[in-house]
Amino acid sequence: MAETIRGEPGRWFEDYPVGAVYAGGSLPVSEQDILDFARRYDPQPMHVDKAAAEAGDFGGLIASGWHTAALMMQVLVAYFVPRPGNLASPGIDELRWLRPVRPGDRLSLRATVQSARRSHSKPGQGVVVSLVEVLNQNGNVVMSLKPVSLMRCRSASAGEK
Amino acid sequence: MAETIRGEPGRWFEDYPVGAVYAGGSLPVSEQDILDFARRYDPQPMHVDKAAAEAGDFGGLIASGWHTAALMMQVLVAYFVPRPGNLASPGIDELRWLRPVRPGDRLSLRATVQSARRSHSKPGQGVVVSLVEVLNQNGNVVMSLKPVSLMRCRSASAGEK
Repeated sequence: MAETIRGEPGRWFEDYPVGAVYAGGSLPVSEQDILDFARRYDPQPMHVDKAAAEAGDFGGLIASGWHTAALMMQVLVAYFVPRPGNLASPGIDELRWLRPVRPGDRLSLRATVQSARRSHSKPGQGVVVSLVEVLNQNGNVVMSLKPVSLMRCRSASAGEK
Repeated sequence: MAETIRGEPGRWFEDYPVGAVYAGGSLPVSEQDILDFARRYDPQPMHVDKAAAEAGDFGGLIASGWHTAALMMQVLVAYFVPRPGNLASPGIDELRWLRPVRPGDRLSLRATVQSARRSHSKPGQGVVVSLVEVLNQNGNVVMSLKPVSLMRCRSASAGEK
């Protein structure tokens, strides 16, 4: 059976069963964006100095890994994070920067639910762990991570659907 | 024996033995910073909508976790990342957002080396795993993570100290 890919966020915990796939986005990354973010938050030569970056290990300017993470969040909010059921994320496991992100790249998202369980301690809440992959325009995964997401359950939200 | 806290980055892999502690920073977080970052990268109500945030679970506006991560990187570059020995980071394990970051907070860094080994596959390089903690002005840890850092070895850098 072909998997169903959802192109917009769910609403509540129940919309995130194991195996559900949420995907979307085509977010352009410009040189100016890379420089602006890195000058403020991650001013290392490979992110802020074109000449040094061209002479360096990556052969050109690359985005800060935290810039890629911020762009991932932008796409995650658009295509994955439940509305209105999102509560918070306590953390992330296994964040990996697999390939450089360069000026002119376009980023998209693929999030696959790996586990989903009701909270023992907090009735009406669920805990979802997903594998989130950020892909470039060639279909290569540039970053992956496993966020933990706390979500409200539909069944605890009287009168809402 | 009291531990030595280093207030500036090292240069090469050899400067990051197990147990070394790097610390510093007092980075202010303004409401405007929180709004600016979140409007672009993480436009959820608790980060961008003061009224909704005040009525919500956190009782007020809080920084996007990715904003806290970006601010962490700013302090990490200032106080921990080796110059010129830094190569790259393949990833992060166990990122945890432990407490909200709010307007008016000041963030500082404490990074403790947990493991340090020479690379088997790449002579002249080493792999450092550290526990990075971001603290607020009250000394509470707001975020922790375990980055993996690839660094050049001094012994492979002829003529440099």
